[in-house]
Amino acid sequence: MSPPSPPSRRRLPRQVRERQMLDAAIAVFSRRGFHLASMDDIAEVAGVSKPMIYAYLGSKDDLFTACIRREGQRLMERIAAAVPTGLTRDERLYRGLLAFFEFVTEHRDGWIVIYRQARVHGSFAGEIAAARERIIVMVAALLARSSDDEAHARAMPIAHALVGAAEALSDWALEHPEETPDALATRLMDVVWTGLRHRDRDPRCSG
Amino acid sequence: MSPPSPPSRRRLPRQVRERQMLDAAIAVFSRRGFHLASMDDIAEVAGVSKPMIYAYLGSKDDLFTACIRREGQRLMERIAAAVPTGLTRDERLYRGLLAFFEFVTEHRDGWIVIYRQARVHGSFAGEIAAARERIIVMVAALLARSSDDEAHARAMPIAHALVGAAEALSDWALEHPEETPDALATRLMDVVWTGLRHRDRDPRCSG
Repeated sequence: MSPPSPPSRRRLPRQVRERQMLDAAIAVFSRRGFHLASMDDIAEVAGVSKPMIYAYLGSKDDLFTACIRREGQRLMERIAAAVPTGLTRDERLYRGLLAFFEFVTEHRDGWIVIYRQARVHGSFAGEIAAARERIIVMVAALLARSSDDEAHARAMPIAHALVGAAEALSDWALEHPEETPDALATRLMDVVWTGLRHRDRDPRCSG
Repeated sequence: MSPPSPPSRRRLPRQVRERQMLDAAIAVFSRRGFHLASMDDIAEVAGVSKPMIYAYLGSKDDLFTACIRREGQRLMERIAAAVPTGLTRDERLYRGLLAFFEFVTEHRDGWIVIYRQARVHGSFAGEIAAARERIIVMVAALLARSSDDEAHARAMPIAHALVGAAEALSDWALEHPEETPDALATRLMDVVWTGLRHRDRDPRCSG
């Protein structure tokens, strides 16, 4: 790998520098796994010194936690931006799923860190569970037929199922990079959406 | 806890003794987690000496691997027995899901070991992935509209999604012990099954 480029070292604002470090950390964690990833590798990919990473973002554990939080936050924001109120529930669901699969396809490294790496390290399970719960709550709000608490609570089990289905399909897609986000969203919609629509709208059609 | 009961120690055949040890290990792992579970606890619950566990089943890692294998195998057999050929695909899918949720509900400890504990310990990820893949392949065979390889391959992504949905719903159900297996299977069927049926049978109904 190329050596760090000293000229830019002192020029960048903290926020930009941190973003570069997190980008580097996600790339290294996703390729090597948490245990094998070294702070030396991450510093080299980020083009900064190892002490600078410690000073900015803390230990390897802290860095991994920061990666999970940032990627989880990005995924949330991506989905939230894709489902403005004003659209029908069906449209919002489809667009939400599409945004999810776009994120997973475009941020393969981030997804691998969140889904595959973080899950298999017990000490980060709470962090992942919290990010996942926020997404499930958002999906339940999309699924609920009204905005009251009871309707939201009723939608929670199906929100869990839908998020589980989307995760599992994304995991499959890691081995099938030819699949487009639209193809993935459509696969899930073909099964789930029709069922939801018929359940809500046309009970005569569900027999 | 009560002390081990020496009178029965030498009477039992190896197979029965191993089953007792695995039952004890699953109970302890599910309650304490892999790291906090001790071989002393497991020996006490099994009513045998710690050296006997090592002699029969090896290290704590070996014991945990044996737990994953046994519970995975039991789950597979339970589902396979519930979906005899001769039923319609819809019936087989429903019964397969029901068998899955019955297993999860009746073997809470086993499910916690497989789903929650084993997933968060990287060294067992391969074992879990293998058990999961066997179940997904079985589900794809249930979903496929014909028995040729191509139909099976086409069903794989939806099999992943369905297994992911069932897992996530089971995880939700751990916090909702009042849910019956039938209620869980029906929840998932309400969404998924209708979609599958309409996709296959009545394209006019999917608009």
